[in-house]
Amino acid sequence: MAEAEAAERRVLVAVDESEESMHALSWCLKNIISDKFSDTLLLLYVKPPRAVSTALDGTAFLFSSDVMLAIEKYGNEVADCVMEKAKKLCSELADVKVETRIENGDARDVICQMADKLGADLLVMGSHGYGLIKRAFLGSVSNHCAQNAKCPVMIVKKPKSTSNSH
Amino acid sequence: MAEAEAAERRVLVAVDESEESMHALSWCLKNIISDKFSDTLLLLYVKPPRAVSTALDGTAFLFSSDVMLAIEKYGNEVADCVMEKAKKLCSELADVKVETRIENGDARDVICQMADKLGADLLVMGSHGYGLIKRAFLGSVSNHCAQNAKCPVMIVKKPKSTSNSH
Repeated sequence: MAEAEAAERRVLVAVDESEESMHALSWCLKNIISDKFSDTLLLLYVKPPRAVSTALDGTAFLFSSDVMLAIEKYGNEVADCVMEKAKKLCSELADVKVETRIENGDARDVICQMADKLGADLLVMGSHGYGLIKRAFLGSVSNHCAQNAKCPVMIVKKPKSTSNSH
Repeated sequence: MAEAEAAERRVLVAVDESEESMHALSWCLKNIISDKFSDTLLLLYVKPPRAVSTALDGTAFLFSSDVMLAIEKYGNEVADCVMEKAKKLCSELADVKVETRIENGDARDVICQMADKLGADLLVMGSHGYGLIKRAFLGSVSNHCAQNAKCPVMIVKKPKSTSNSH
């Protein structure tokens, strides 16, 4: 119902380690989050799937369990760091209830699934490939989500001239 | 500047004859337009380019000038009708300043160009191919705009079950 939707909104923001995703969050806090609604901001960070045992020729064994643990630990630290940065932005820019989720998997699918599962009324994300590693597939994650998420999707680009970049 | 952006926003909504585009407009009026900002809502309708003299074998001559005029007239009537419907929605759902633009050309390019030219802070549109005729290219216009427009882009899908949704 339109009225229920207007009264209480769940805004899902997909964040990652990129500046662009923080820009998207900041844009959302300034332009979407409003006192008019009792908004809940859901911060989602998706860790890439564990790069284990995909190799059939046994190369996976080259990673000792120590190395695997170190990679895992690094991934968790990045996730925590992104979430801390995101929560700090939220507290600085708006008075809004914040929930956080860290998930594992392919960002394209996980974001759409979580939007559905968490009952998001709106999904906000940056426009690039979600995660620096995926820059090669520029835009593919946001495209995928714009097409497949069931809720409205807001794609926020980082303006080219924030400082004097280019 | 963040503050100027927050104080006055120009929200461009690309409308067409589809129900989905009216849903996107309605969503925008309920969720984006806010008293907090002095928003201006820019309604843009893009008429498809005139289908004249593209044929090299002379088939274009099959359309008499009367027929061409009738097609042109029909196109203008559709445009006016869409704009009237859109303006009515605006007056019903929000107290917002509305400006309208009707342009000619390829929707994909025209929408991005106009977003830039009109200084839009946000572009809102439905998710399908923009215009019933273009359904075959489902999503292509919104994808194109999400990638190419310089401002943030909001893509709003029409929910499958509007009545008893979720």
